[in-house]
Amino acid sequence: MKAEIITIGDEILDGSIIDTNSAWLANILNQNGIPVFQISSVSDDKCHIINALTEASSRVDLIIMTGGIGPTNDDITKIALCEYFNVQLYESKDVLENIQKIFSGRNILLSERNRKQAEVPENCQIIQYPSGSAPCMWFEENGRVYVSLPGVPFEMKTLMEETLIYKLKTHFNTSNIYNKTVLIQGLPESVLADKISDWEYKLPSSIKLAYLPSPGFIKLRLSSVGISNNEIEPIINKSIEELQLIIPDSIYGYDDQTLELIIGKLLADQSCTLATAESCTGGYISHKITSVPGSSEYYKGSIIAYSNEIKEKLLKVNPKSIIEFGAVSQKVVEEMVIGLKKRMNTDYNIATSGISGPGGGTLEKPVGTTWIAVSDGTNIYSRKFHFGKNRGRNIIMTGMTALNMLRNIILEKNK
Amino acid sequence: MKAEIITIGDEILDGSIIDTNSAWLANILNQNGIPVFQISSVSDDKCHIINALTEASSRVDLIIMTGGIGPTNDDITKIALCEYFNVQLYESKDVLENIQKIFSGRNILLSERNRKQAEVPENCQIIQYPSGSAPCMWFEENGRVYVSLPGVPFEMKTLMEETLIYKLKTHFNTSNIYNKTVLIQGLPESVLADKISDWEYKLPSSIKLAYLPSPGFIKLRLSSVGISNNEIEPIINKSIEELQLIIPDSIYGYDDQTLELIIGKLLADQSCTLATAESCTGGYISHKITSVPGSSEYYKGSIIAYSNEIKEKLLKVNPKSIIEFGAVSQKVVEEMVIGLKKRMNTDYNIATSGISGPGGGTLEKPVGTTWIAVSDGTNIYSRKFHFGKNRGRNIIMTGMTALNMLRNIILEKNK
Repeated sequence: MKAEIITIGDEILDGSIIDTNSAWLANILNQNGIPVFQISSVSDDKCHIINALTEASSRVDLIIMTGGIGPTNDDITKIALCEYFNVQLYESKDVLENIQKIFSGRNILLSERNRKQAEVPENCQIIQYPSGSAPCMWFEENGRVYVSLPGVPFEMKTLMEETLIYKLKTHFNTSNIYNKTVLIQGLPESVLADKISDWEYKLPSSIKLAYLPSPGFIKLRLSSVGISNNEIEPIINKSIEELQLIIPDSIYGYDDQTLELIIGKLLADQSCTLATAESCTGGYISHKITSVPGSSEYYKGSIIAYSNEIKEKLLKVNPKSIIEFGAVSQKVVEEMVIGLKKRMNTDYNIATSGISGPGGGTLEKPVGTTWIAVSDGTNIYSRKFHFGKNRGRNIIMTGMTALNMLRNIILEKNK
Repeated sequence: MKAEIITIGDEILDGSIIDTNSAWLANILNQNGIPVFQISSVSDDKCHIINALTEASSRVDLIIMTGGIGPTNDDITKIALCEYFNVQLYESKDVLENIQKIFSGRNILLSERNRKQAEVPENCQIIQYPSGSAPCMWFEENGRVYVSLPGVPFEMKTLMEETLIYKLKTHFNTSNIYNKTVLIQGLPESVLADKISDWEYKLPSSIKLAYLPSPGFIKLRLSSVGISNNEIEPIINKSIEELQLIIPDSIYGYDDQTLELIIGKLLADQSCTLATAESCTGGYISHKITSVPGSSEYYKGSIIAYSNEIKEKLLKVNPKSIIEFGAVSQKVVEEMVIGLKKRMNTDYNIATSGISGPGGGTLEKPVGTTWIAVSDGTNIYSRKFHFGKNRGRNIIMTGMTALNMLRNIILEKNK
């Protein structure tokens, strides 16, 4: 059983956008026992889409398409599908009702153009998505399954995660794939590889290991194919226990967890509160923390002190400290975290101050120099880092490092 | 004249990495008059690569491949190319010399595995890249050109930019492609399409229009093929001038600009300062603004008031206003922006308060209800929005809308 992904859109072929849908789809399909044989990107052109469908259908059992089903004139996927299957479009009552609901909820009049989105090929099953006007269409022909998904990543992902992946697994009776991902913060890939090379060497041959690095963290994926969960789970868990002994502070979570989710749970469980004082991260940490639903339960807020004036006025940093040690210094970042605690009256507090770049570096403090301080109410822990030259990466690295420092400090305090 | 891109690698098909090479290649090819007809990603498998080459050669004049030419065993592109062209591998003196130079420069002994990288198909021309061990290979057969590039983005890009693109333009005598992208905020795709449908209808047939929606904004791309810049530029500029009359407040920029960059430039040009008070956006606006290098010149900081306590304490919001009108109300968001200005002593100020969801909605104020206030020092402009049910999208929509409100207010004040 093999799948092929076809992404549709001129904007992919002219390089206006990076096709991130394919990688996301390939990942979720593989994790659910559906290997992806090929990925193709084609234009918003009827003949081209039909040709891609014909080629793919000679190779695989499942074809997943994204894009080209919006309300504008360049969206042609449905017309291509009609011609490919030799069927007609009809107006689906269910889809129309859903669209009407969405538009009345937003107080927008339904135009003729939007109404057209309710037209679907007559041979498809509809999988609805309550808050998106483009439905998912499921076709079966000659034992093959064709699925058309919207190209908007957010709508595509919701449809896939909430409904489609279960329908696919049931339909194709897929072979078992077991994945466990270990999330690691604070170690560059090469350092990690050296530290765990003995462990890696001793891994059972049934387990495949993959390093998946991202800015600020590394995913280490252990996977097996064709072995039941009952059989493989204890083997993988044992390997991970051994790994934890080698890099105890660096493993912050597993699978789909995020640092901000884990910290949120730790704080909520202990009815503790958090605030941040961000200079170089400029709101990134706050944005991460508040991306978690329910974060207002434990997160009081932040003072983004992007100027020395605000550090002094709102965080009561001593102007002399800034003059003597510079804004990027242990002294200032610790004063920031002390001032923050007084202002916010919170249990835990984070402060960051660094040189994100590209400007502002000196010989003594080059771009990438960053101080992070975390307070647990009793003690202040501060550390200096050197992250590198890229502004965006520095902001992410500082944010992820600060959150992982906080995580270890909360765990230490509650031992 | 059309091109096709084939990216080779199992890591693309299992979703471990996002294939960014394709978009980069597509972009540079298009900008140099070589339209890309299709992009395909295939596995590190000889037959699969040969099949992809066969299919592509039936469609296009130029095939650009990346990946699968490294030193490891799963790199099989050269073997596939030999079988496809029915030729043998031979050890290229030039490539070997280059590899030897690289290794001696790094003080590493040349292994048998590395030496094998000097083997290339006998029918190819070599395009060397001084600091990379994998060369670029150029093949010609039946009037078609096949190019094999390394998959490492940095090596691939250097080869393309420094040598290959000129060789391609000369070889194919390419036609001119002209692109202009209009950036639009505050109009859903279907509303925009309706508003500009007459304009779209009247566009000269030499201009192709594409809608590229993202969360919070839409890119509208006007493009032409085969017409000189001198000829098409005034035509496209005239069309954009007409578009500006239809949706004056919604067009915030062009091509690679971003709202945060445009606002940064406006503020810096006038030596004005900005601060934000974020509730529902939780630091997202601040993060966007500070992602711009040099933003500390005009951005003083933010008070992320994620709790009512902080709204009252730091922004001096009247507790009675929160009780009477609720935290998500015109009264409170205006008091936030007033309190912020006093605290920060800034020229422009933004405040947001909304229900991002998934919790916290009521019948009267459903999830997605958001108030934004912007102050220009003299006047306060506040508006209510309904963005929808998704937390992440609500945060982005609120942030983009607030930034575009600010942009229009700065422009209005300086008319």
